[in-house]
Amino acid sequence: MNEAEITQIQQDDRQYVMHSWAKQAYVRPTVITKAKGIFFWDERDHKCYDMCSQLVYLNVGHRHPKLLEAFKSVGEIPLAAPAFATAPKSQLARKIVKAAPENMAKVFFTNGGADANDHAVKIARMATGRYKIFSRYRSYHGATFGAGNLTGESRRFLVEPGIPGFVKFETPYLYRETLDFESEEAASAFYLNRLHSQILYEGPDQIAAVFLEPVPGSNGVLIPPKGYLEGVRELCSRYGILMICDEVMTGFGRTGKMFAVQHYPFEPDMITFAKGVTSGYSPLGGVILSRDVAEYFDEHIFLTGLTYSGHTVSAQIGCASMDIYQEENLLENARETGGVLAERLKQLKKFRAVGDVRSIGLFAAVELVKDKETKEPLQAYGMDYGKDPSGLMKKFVALLAEKGFYTYSHESSVIIAPPLIITAEQVNEAMNLFETALREFEENVLFPANTLTVK
Amino acid sequence: MNEAEITQIQQDDRQYVMHSWAKQAYVRPTVITKAKGIFFWDERDHKCYDMCSQLVYLNVGHRHPKLLEAFKSVGEIPLAAPAFATAPKSQLARKIVKAAPENMAKVFFTNGGADANDHAVKIARMATGRYKIFSRYRSYHGATFGAGNLTGESRRFLVEPGIPGFVKFETPYLYRETLDFESEEAASAFYLNRLHSQILYEGPDQIAAVFLEPVPGSNGVLIPPKGYLEGVRELCSRYGILMICDEVMTGFGRTGKMFAVQHYPFEPDMITFAKGVTSGYSPLGGVILSRDVAEYFDEHIFLTGLTYSGHTVSAQIGCASMDIYQEENLLENARETGGVLAERLKQLKKFRAVGDVRSIGLFAAVELVKDKETKEPLQAYGMDYGKDPSGLMKKFVALLAEKGFYTYSHESSVIIAPPLIITAEQVNEAMNLFETALREFEENVLFPANTLTVK
Repeated sequence: MNEAEITQIQQDDRQYVMHSWAKQAYVRPTVITKAKGIFFWDERDHKCYDMCSQLVYLNVGHRHPKLLEAFKSVGEIPLAAPAFATAPKSQLARKIVKAAPENMAKVFFTNGGADANDHAVKIARMATGRYKIFSRYRSYHGATFGAGNLTGESRRFLVEPGIPGFVKFETPYLYRETLDFESEEAASAFYLNRLHSQILYEGPDQIAAVFLEPVPGSNGVLIPPKGYLEGVRELCSRYGILMICDEVMTGFGRTGKMFAVQHYPFEPDMITFAKGVTSGYSPLGGVILSRDVAEYFDEHIFLTGLTYSGHTVSAQIGCASMDIYQEENLLENARETGGVLAERLKQLKKFRAVGDVRSIGLFAAVELVKDKETKEPLQAYGMDYGKDPSGLMKKFVALLAEKGFYTYSHESSVIIAPPLIITAEQVNEAMNLFETALREFEENVLFPANTLTVK
Repeated sequence: MNEAEITQIQQDDRQYVMHSWAKQAYVRPTVITKAKGIFFWDERDHKCYDMCSQLVYLNVGHRHPKLLEAFKSVGEIPLAAPAFATAPKSQLARKIVKAAPENMAKVFFTNGGADANDHAVKIARMATGRYKIFSRYRSYHGATFGAGNLTGESRRFLVEPGIPGFVKFETPYLYRETLDFESEEAASAFYLNRLHSQILYEGPDQIAAVFLEPVPGSNGVLIPPKGYLEGVRELCSRYGILMICDEVMTGFGRTGKMFAVQHYPFEPDMITFAKGVTSGYSPLGGVILSRDVAEYFDEHIFLTGLTYSGHTVSAQIGCASMDIYQEENLLENARETGGVLAERLKQLKKFRAVGDVRSIGLFAAVELVKDKETKEPLQAYGMDYGKDPSGLMKKFVALLAEKGFYTYSHESSVIIAPPLIITAEQVNEAMNLFETALREFEENVLFPANTLTVK
C-alpha cells in the first residue's frame, strides 16, 4: 500500500464513515497495512502486538492461512435462506453442540452477539411464558435494544426509558467490596442471598431468565468468587428461571475451555456466542439451547428469525475456525500461556498505579488506581468516551500502543486478550512492553513528583 | 452431492438447528444442491425459479462469478476493528453515499437490517434529544427489540410490553380502505391529516423520528398513494422530526432505482439498508445519515457501536456487489423487466382468487381473496406461521414451489421479488407457472364446485 492509497483511505473514511463511541471531528483512523498472527503494522510501519485480538474476536490471529483458504471455496455451496438446510449450517451446529456443555442440544444462529442476546430474551419469554429478565450491573451485552437493556453500564442509558420487565442485580466485585469476607465462598453466599431476596421481591414466577456473563469482559474481567455461579444456577433451578450465559467474549477458548462455564460444575439453560466462533472472519453469532428449552419448540412456534440466520458463508468460516481450535490445540495453549500471563500480571502489583489484576486463560484486566490505599480509580465511574477531562486512561492506552502493545480500556481497566495462538515467549515480550509503558506513565504522567513505585 | 450426504445434512439440521417461525417437530428442510443465476435445484433435482431472491436479498442472483471471485482475494486485506480505517469500508461508504439521495453524507455500518433500525432509533434520539418514535401498522422492521418494537404486525407482540415512546400510525392501504377517494392525492390528504393529528396529540416536540418503509415489503408491497411520502416529509420538516426510511428490502435496485425514495421528489434524513448491499453474500447492513444528522456528531459523541461495524470482508463483498449493479445495468433491467411483470400481474386480475396486484420494479405482491366482492382475505389477519387451520396460503405457496416458482407469502399476499438479473423471457416463464398453479389451486382447492374464473 503506497502513501497516496493510505491518504485516500483515511480521507474517504473521515468523509463517509461514522465511527463508534467518538466525536467524529476528532477521529484520526489508523490503517492496518500488514498483519500476521498476533501482529499488525500500521501506516507508519509501526509493529503492534494485537493484545486484544482486535475486539476480542481474532482468536486464531490475523490472516490465518486455513481461513483464507476457506474463503476461496465458499462459492461452491449455494447461499440459502434460513428455511433450507445447508451442509455448513448443519455441520457447524453439530460442532458447537458437541463442544458445549452436555445438556445443550440445538443452535439458533444470528449475525452477532447483540442480536443473539435479543433473541435469547425472546426465546426465554416464549419458553417460560414469563416476562421479567434479570441481568447485572457492570455488564455489557451489546448495542441493540434488547442487549442494550440487558447491559448494566452507562452504554445502556441511550436505550432508556427501558423495556418493561428488565431488572438489574449486582455483579460480585471483590476488589471494590467494602466488606471483608473470610473466603470467596462467604462472599458468594452474601451476593447469592441478596440475589435470592431480589428474586423474591420481583416475584419468582414472573422471571423468565437470569442473564450473566460468567466472567464479565468489557467491564473488567471480573472473576466470580468460588461457588457463585453454581449458586445462581441453584436459585434459577429452584424457581424455574432460565440461566443464560453470555459467552460472546468468553466462548471459543478465550478462558482456556471452549466455554467459560465449563470451568464450573453447572450447566446453563442457554449460551449466547459470537466473535470466536468464526474468529471474526465472517459475522456470526447465535444461541445454544439446552435440550429442555429446545424441546419446548417441537410443538410450539419458534416465533423469531432473521434473514441471515445460519448464513452459508459465515457457517463455512465457522466450521474452519472451529477445526483450527482443535488442530492447533488452542484451548491447551490458552491455559498454558494464560499461566504465563497470570504470573506476569502478579508481578505488576509492585506498580503503584496497579490496584488489581485479574485473569482466566488469555482473558485479563489490569485495574489502575490513583492511590493504592484508598483504591481511588484512575478514572471516575462512567467517564469513558472522552468524558474524563484528565484523559488519563486514554493517555495510558495510547502510550501502550506507542510501545507496540495494542489494546483498549474500559473504566479504569486495561483489557488483555491476545489471539489464542500466542506463545509464552510472546506473552513475556508483550508484558515487557506493558511494564515499560506503565513505568513511563507513572514517572511522567501520574506521579511525576515521586517516581518510586511501592509494593 | 450424493444421497448419503444429503441425508446427513438433513439429519444434522433437524437434530441441531433451530428453525425460524416454525414448530420444530414439523420442519423438513430442503437442501439446495445446485444454483445459478435465478435458478436453484433441490435434492430431488427439482428446478426452481427463485422468485423471492431467497429472502429478497440475492439481487445479483445465485453464484455470481464476480462475487465468488471477490471471496478469493478477501485474505489480502487484514481484518480490522471499527476504530481502524480500511480500504473496503472507505470505498463502500463512498459508493453508498454517491448512490444515495443528494443530501446523504455518511454511513454507519451494522450486521443486518434489524440492528440497522435499532441503531437508527438511537441515532435519532441522540441527534434530536427527543424520545418518541413513530412507525406504522402493517410494517416489518426486524426481530431485535428496537426493530421489533418498530414493527407494526403480529411479530411485534413477542417484544411487548413495548419500549416506552414507540407509537404506531396507519399505512395507507387503498385496496382495503372503506372510503372511496376521488384520487390518490385525495387519499394521501386523508391519511396525512390523520398523521398530522396524531403528531399533535403525541406532542410534536417529543417526537424524534418517523420510521417507514417507503414501500412496505413483507406486508404486501403496499405502494404509497401519490403525494403521501412527500406529505410525511413535509410534516416531519415542519416539526423538526427526522424521517427515516427503512430500505432494507427496497434499497439497491429492487424497485428500479438504487433507493425507492429516489422515485419521489423528497429526501429522508436517514436510510437503513442491508440485503441488496452485498446481495446477501456476506452479512452487512447500515444506516445512511444526511449531512445535517451526520454533522451533529462532529462535536457530540456517537454513542453506539458494534464489533463488526464495517466488517472488512462484508465491505469487500459490498463493493463488488455494487459494481455489478452498474456493470450489468441492473437498475435499468429491474425497471424494464418490472414492466413485463406489471403487465403479467394485471392479467392475473381475471382470476377469481386475485383481489389485488401491486408492484414497483421487481417488487410485487399478489393479494388473494376468498371472495372478490367482499374482499374476504384468503387468510384472516394475524394467522401466519401455521395458525390458520385452513392452511390455504401454505397450500398455495407449496403448489407454486411444486410448479417451480419458489417464493413465500405473508398474510394473504404472495411476494414476487426475483433477482434483478432476470430477463423478460424468464419473467414470462415464471408467471406462466404462477398462472398454472393458481388455476389448479382455484379448481382443486378453493372453488372446487365452480371452476369458472370471473372477471
